[in-house]
Amino acid sequence: MNSIERLESEVRGYCRDFPAMFDRAQGAWLYDEQGNAWLDFFAGAGALNYGHNPAPLKQALLDYLARDGVAHSLDMFSVAKREFLERFQRVILAPRGLEYKVQFTGPTGTNAVEAALKLARKVTGREHILSFTNSFHGMTLGSLAVTGNGFKRRGAGVSLHDVTPMPFDGYLGRDVNTLDYLEAVLDDEGSGVDKPAAVILETVQAEGGVNVAGFEWLKRLAALLKRHGVLLIVDDIQVGCGRTGPFFSFEPAGLKPDIVCLSKSLSGYGVPLAVVLMKPEHDVWAPGEHNGTFRGHNPAFVTAAAALQFWENDALARDTARKAGHVASRLKDLLNHTGMAAAWRGRGLIQGLAFEDAALAGRIAAACVERKLIIETAGVQNDVLKLLPSLTIRDAELDQGLDIIQTCVRDVLDRKARAAA
Amino acid sequence: MNSIERLESEVRGYCRDFPAMFDRAQGAWLYDEQGNAWLDFFAGAGALNYGHNPAPLKQALLDYLARDGVAHSLDMFSVAKREFLERFQRVILAPRGLEYKVQFTGPTGTNAVEAALKLARKVTGREHILSFTNSFHGMTLGSLAVTGNGFKRRGAGVSLHDVTPMPFDGYLGRDVNTLDYLEAVLDDEGSGVDKPAAVILETVQAEGGVNVAGFEWLKRLAALLKRHGVLLIVDDIQVGCGRTGPFFSFEPAGLKPDIVCLSKSLSGYGVPLAVVLMKPEHDVWAPGEHNGTFRGHNPAFVTAAAALQFWENDALARDTARKAGHVASRLKDLLNHTGMAAAWRGRGLIQGLAFEDAALAGRIAAACVERKLIIETAGVQNDVLKLLPSLTIRDAELDQGLDIIQTCVRDVLDRKARAAA
Amino acid sequence: MNSIERLESEVRGYCRDFPAMFDRAQGAWLYDEQGNAWLDFFAGAGALNYGHNPAPLKQALLDYLARDGVAHSLDMFSVAKREFLERFQRVILAPRGLEYKVQFTGPTGTNAVEAALKLARKVTGREHILSFTNSFHGMTLGSLAVTGNGFKRRGAGVSLHDVTPMPFDGYLGRDVNTLDYLEAVLDDEGSGVDKPAAVILETVQAEGGVNVAGFEWLKRLAALLKRHGVLLIVDDIQVGCGRTGPFFSFEPAGLKPDIVCLSKSLSGYGVPLAVVLMKPEHDVWAPGEHNGTFRGHNPAFVTAAAALQFWENDALARDTARKAGHVASRLKDLLNHTGMAAAWRGRGLIQGLAFEDAALAGRIAAACVERKLIIETAGVQNDVLKLLPSLTIRDAELDQGLDIIQTCVRDVLDRKARAAA
Amino acid sequence: MNSIERLESEVRGYCRDFPAMFDRAQGAWLYDEQGNAWLDFFAGAGALNYGHNPAPLKQALLDYLARDGVAHSLDMFSVAKREFLERFQRVILAPRGLEYKVQFTGPTGTNAVEAALKLARKVTGREHILSFTNSFHGMTLGSLAVTGNGFKRRGAGVSLHDVTPMPFDGYLGRDVNTLDYLEAVLDDEGSGVDKPAAVILETVQAEGGVNVAGFEWLKRLAALLKRHGVLLIVDDIQVGCGRTGPFFSFEPAGLKPDIVCLSKSLSGYGVPLAVVLMKPEHDVWAPGEHNGTFRGHNPAFVTAAAALQFWENDALARDTARKAGHVASRLKDLLNHTGMAAAWRGRGLIQGLAFEDAALAGRIAAACVERKLIIETAGVQNDVLKLLPSLTIRDAELDQGLDIIQTCVRDVLDRKARAAA
Repeated sequence: MNSIERLESEVRGYCRDFPAMFDRAQGAWLYDEQGNAWLDFFAGAGALNYGHNPAPLKQALLDYLARDGVAHSLDMFSVAKREFLERFQRVILAPRGLEYKVQFTGPTGTNAVEAALKLARKVTGREHILSFTNSFHGMTLGSLAVTGNGFKRRGAGVSLHDVTPMPFDGYLGRDVNTLDYLEAVLDDEGSGVDKPAAVILETVQAEGGVNVAGFEWLKRLAALLKRHGVLLIVDDIQVGCGRTGPFFSFEPAGLKPDIVCLSKSLSGYGVPLAVVLMKPEHDVWAPGEHNGTFRGHNPAFVTAAAALQFWENDALARDTARKAGHVASRLKDLLNHTGMAAAWRGRGLIQGLAFEDAALAGRIAAACVERKLIIETAGVQNDVLKLLPSLTIRDAELDQGLDIIQTCVRDVLDRKARAAA
Repeated sequence: MNSIERLESEVRGYCRDFPAMFDRAQGAWLYDEQGNAWLDFFAGAGALNYGHNPAPLKQALLDYLARDGVAHSLDMFSVAKREFLERFQRVILAPRGLEYKVQFTGPTGTNAVEAALKLARKVTGREHILSFTNSFHGMTLGSLAVTGNGFKRRGAGVSLHDVTPMPFDGYLGRDVNTLDYLEAVLDDEGSGVDKPAAVILETVQAEGGVNVAGFEWLKRLAALLKRHGVLLIVDDIQVGCGRTGPFFSFEPAGLKPDIVCLSKSLSGYGVPLAVVLMKPEHDVWAPGEHNGTFRGHNPAFVTAAAALQFWENDALARDTARKAGHVASRLKDLLNHTGMAAAWRGRGLIQGLAFEDAALAGRIAAACVERKLIIETAGVQNDVLKLLPSLTIRDAELDQGLDIIQTCVRDVLDRKARAAA
Repeated sequence: MNSIERLESEVRGYCRDFPAMFDRAQGAWLYDEQGNAWLDFFAGAGALNYGHNPAPLKQALLDYLARDGVAHSLDMFSVAKREFLERFQRVILAPRGLEYKVQFTGPTGTNAVEAALKLARKVTGREHILSFTNSFHGMTLGSLAVTGNGFKRRGAGVSLHDVTPMPFDGYLGRDVNTLDYLEAVLDDEGSGVDKPAAVILETVQAEGGVNVAGFEWLKRLAALLKRHGVLLIVDDIQVGCGRTGPFFSFEPAGLKPDIVCLSKSLSGYGVPLAVVLMKPEHDVWAPGEHNGTFRGHNPAFVTAAAALQFWENDALARDTARKAGHVASRLKDLLNHTGMAAAWRGRGLIQGLAFEDAALAGRIAAACVERKLIIETAGVQNDVLKLLPSLTIRDAELDQGLDIIQTCVRDVLDRKARAAA
Repeated sequence: MNSIERLESEVRGYCRDFPAMFDRAQGAWLYDEQGNAWLDFFAGAGALNYGHNPAPLKQALLDYLARDGVAHSLDMFSVAKREFLERFQRVILAPRGLEYKVQFTGPTGTNAVEAALKLARKVTGREHILSFTNSFHGMTLGSLAVTGNGFKRRGAGVSLHDVTPMPFDGYLGRDVNTLDYLEAVLDDEGSGVDKPAAVILETVQAEGGVNVAGFEWLKRLAALLKRHGVLLIVDDIQVGCGRTGPFFSFEPAGLKPDIVCLSKSLSGYGVPLAVVLMKPEHDVWAPGEHNGTFRGHNPAFVTAAAALQFWENDALARDTARKAGHVASRLKDLLNHTGMAAAWRGRGLIQGLAFEDAALAGRIAAACVERKLIIETAGVQNDVLKLLPSLTIRDAELDQGLDIIQTCVRDVLDRKARAAA
């Protein structure tokens, strides 16, 4: 038992799966204190889209700290915040024709989600929210209420209110368009589902098992909500910032959500940062109505501003699409060649293999970890092997990881076959 | 209108009070982009107990970043986390005879509070929580429910549940011991207040208006809760880490709370970090039952570990007591000499003047800001001028700030007298 | 304006539809104070299955009152209660192979529903309940939470908790078996629908618009709940006591619900009475855990016991089936001959015509009332003309009412056609 | 085990205390099926203020039933309802200068309370309600939320919301005016108690242990609420209809509550009936927004109208005061002569002896029951022997009961003394 195991609460999780004491990191690699290199197909649960400690961000951060740039300023004016806001406006919002005001919430995803829910309720004067099956939005009480996972929900210790879950795209199989139910519920004054302030949506459910909403489904959802005067909140915390290719995951569907939550890879360096974007007409906050001590952590503004250099042109988006195609192709080949009972899922560089026998996913992940590939499973049953490499991973590194996966899949299937024999 | 005003949400607050674009900071000073120096009696709302960018922490941080120390590791094992945990155990917990397991929640105070409430509910199997009038615990739904401020509560947009507020020490004047009510309620099966899992307490309510709980009151509270099997959660986010002198604000009362929340000054550099401390017998979390992306932000572990050097001996605590005495003495002198209708409140280096005419507090703070002293008001009526200098402020700086306050108090009183004449 | 309109609250409803001051009543007829006779196709919203003031019940009641039988006894032992319980056991439960304990709640349907929900939560230790779209269970807070109607729900003035509505049979059209969704939700730990204590069901939704659940659907629902250890509560308040033919509406589907609510026609005389039936293993109440002043109104026991004479053999059930066939046949003929855009719905002597143009239903009902036929509309849009005659109505009276409906349908359609021309 | 014990749910309560099978009743007497006479100091928990089966009401009821008066009419106009409303207006409201609209809710107290809470929330647009410690308002979810008793509250099986209990008069001893806390909470935007729609109050808490609010306290409460625009709901279900002397319990304090709930003795015959009275400006109900099947049970209108004959003059009120004085005097004598550790409480003909040793109350009640005096204990600890005779009890009967109590008190005290010896 190391001293962390002795001193830290039993709530710790990932250290149980990845048995190494990590010390340094660079790009797609983590190094433990023995100097072993671990290839990272996990990317800090989506917080490291640009890899570990990307060089230009690191330099900006070191410069800022060295010159005693103000570190902590709550929501006072600061030069670093101004620089981030102006660049975010110029590089991200303007080119996409998006008009959003920016709110800096406490620097965690769940804080952004809580703020978004509060805002939607204030804008509409309604209390109810619709979430989706197998959603994941965070661990504080408001976010838990819109999260699907039963284990996490029970952790609340109280019952969770003012939310009704709706079936996500594909929840009832291919032949049922789940929006038929959502539409019926909104149209029917007798449905028992109170008219909602908003629907909160991940376009790709990452924790929920790499469940991907189709673009047509997303378009119909947006049109339906518009017709009913219900706000659309997109939680792009895990699959925004380029994870699916474009900066926002909803761009290809042509959506302009009323409210967007960003965090994780926004600072680009794993530094805590979160924002809520809202259409200007929804910016009805009173000053200080939602606050938080760390909503002005300037080092995060510095790295976040530096990270926007990745979006000055479409090179990264195109490169992500190219890599995504390669990963998908190799995973589908693997499915075809092994004939195993699993299905491919994904969009951009979040991809997964969903196993009918959930235990297989865990065994394959564990085998990968033995070979020093950091990879995890997703889905409430942990039945999905989830690939989440950084977007900036080199092609050779990507193939190195895919080779390990391929080897481990074959090993685990062989072992299972032998056990059954 | 600067670009921040154009691009940031109307929710921004402090920038409306402190009209400067801050760029750099050091010790007790903030510098705006014109190079003006502002003296800081606000300390990042309590997050900067050791001043801005304290040199030893800065160097540790620069070194760590320069050598590509892993920045973001969720709750994997990391060398930086181990170093912090071991030092926290050695420097803080062991000498005080406190046995606590440490949980790293999302790095904001509200996240620590939410985790603490969940844990208390899980440990006891009960849902109800008792909070106190004029408490402040955070902006997410669970924390808002235990927060007193009506303006903040209404921001929730939904009704807040499973909590009953109790009167804080002094709430009904000096002649009423408010614990009589709390005791009656706990003893009486017919009170309508369901048996609580826990009481959540700030020993000094900072946002609530510098309301100080007496040590005898705290002792009786702890004994009462013990008798009823109700957990005591101390939210030491704002007044822990030495703000009142000792590391924990509850030390002089001899309390050993079941659960403690720390954040704000814990990292010592304004870097987001929060922990929940729990007695080992309460560490009933299942792995991953409460999580969060930024619960493993290693730069915060690095500065937090470095900050513990302030606690290797009792020099800082003694120095804080000395400075606190000086501030109290000057404030009380000011009260005596002006004869104004105000009362002194405070403990350690959180002190305030509570004005009968609430508007005076705001006018004095504004006058101070005009003289480039950063200071704010507190209390739901903004009737308390709150002094929150860093603990490491130099004596001369402290007097410089107190001089400004003295001048502004006299000016504002004079103006008022002239207006009344 | 009569004095009732002056003195009674605006909440009054039916008196706005039926403009007469009623004085006496007998069988299928109401008489106003001018002596006009009104034919009743409404039956006190289902509380008068045996017609107004049925002779044998009236005599039993008069005898009991005349001899100073105890009127009010809370839940003390009383001869009248014993007589009812023994007869209910002998006539209703035993022949149907149903083992139920009987709880006398406050004498209203909503009180029975509240007790049933509390009991299901206590039995299972769970908080969540599943209800159905367009359900109706009552106006107190617990019952409202399981009721679909948005207008009624908003009347609560607070948000309603711990309930998720599920789509009733047919809610998504003929091609979708709505239990697929309920099954997915129960099977999926990530659905966001917390594991329920119980499902509460009307086999025929009366207020909701005469929505009829198919027997196969009911069987599958019961099996599904059994597999998951979720209790089935049947609210048979409106369609029990013979309304659909058999005493309990769920008999033909072979269901043995865990908990059953009865009220309305249970006393047989419009006297307030309600019971909860529960399987003996679910009788986990502590004495007095749910109570109510009027749970021992002995005149209701007397008429309820007398009413059971209708169930000593199957004559009433058979007669109801015969009359139901006749009504259905005449309504379907009317649909065929007029070709109007409406659909027939029903089971036993609760039948309705659902109009695509909701306004038509209201106009037809109003025209019937002008001809002194008491009839109402149902459904959240008031789009269903609902026929709810007493079960003991004479054939000639039934045809007299159906003739009026036929005439009014033709008149209203003609008027609409002329208006369109 | 009799057949009721076999067939009725374990929830039954009073039959466990009063071991007789009751058959008939008249005035102050119950008769069991063996013909034994039981003297009633319980009066149907306050539902029989005029005694059992009072002759004039009985005759009116028999006449109405005999002539086939309409029994059940929901909220259609009926001659019987008109008669009641007009007489209630003439005999009760007009002479007292009270302008109220009358709502007929479902005929139980809890239904009236639920309607009152809904109305107060609609009128004010607020959700929160203040209740009092040791209150009792009913068993449905909304009423339970404003009820103090923990055993009853836990029966809900869910947590109860949107209510904060306040300390009732005397809750903190004689030296503390509990309205100081209520006033502080209403005045303080930071109290954490959301601004309430209403306060719900029993002027004498019956179930709670015969706790009597002083008239000065009531006046101050009413003034305080008026200043804050908070509605006052008086639940006069148990202590209205003359129980404390005047028709309404709040008359002597000069209150004109915004909303009043009546039930129990309103029908005068134990027939279920309940009303909500509201000031005309608060009658903002939409038609049918709160409904219920049995809100038009005409036999109750008939007996309730007949019962108003008791209020045509002040004879009953004066007689109640006289009897109350006699009971109080005998109880106080008993206290003085025995020197037992108990306190007298009461107003009008609801009086109690509160025992320091709670078990004594139960033993004395049981001893009385052995001597065929029906009497119960109250208070969450069952520490109060509660005297609740009908108002029309004869003087000799009253003394007969008091004699039994006196005997039993002495017996129980003697037994206790002997046991201790």
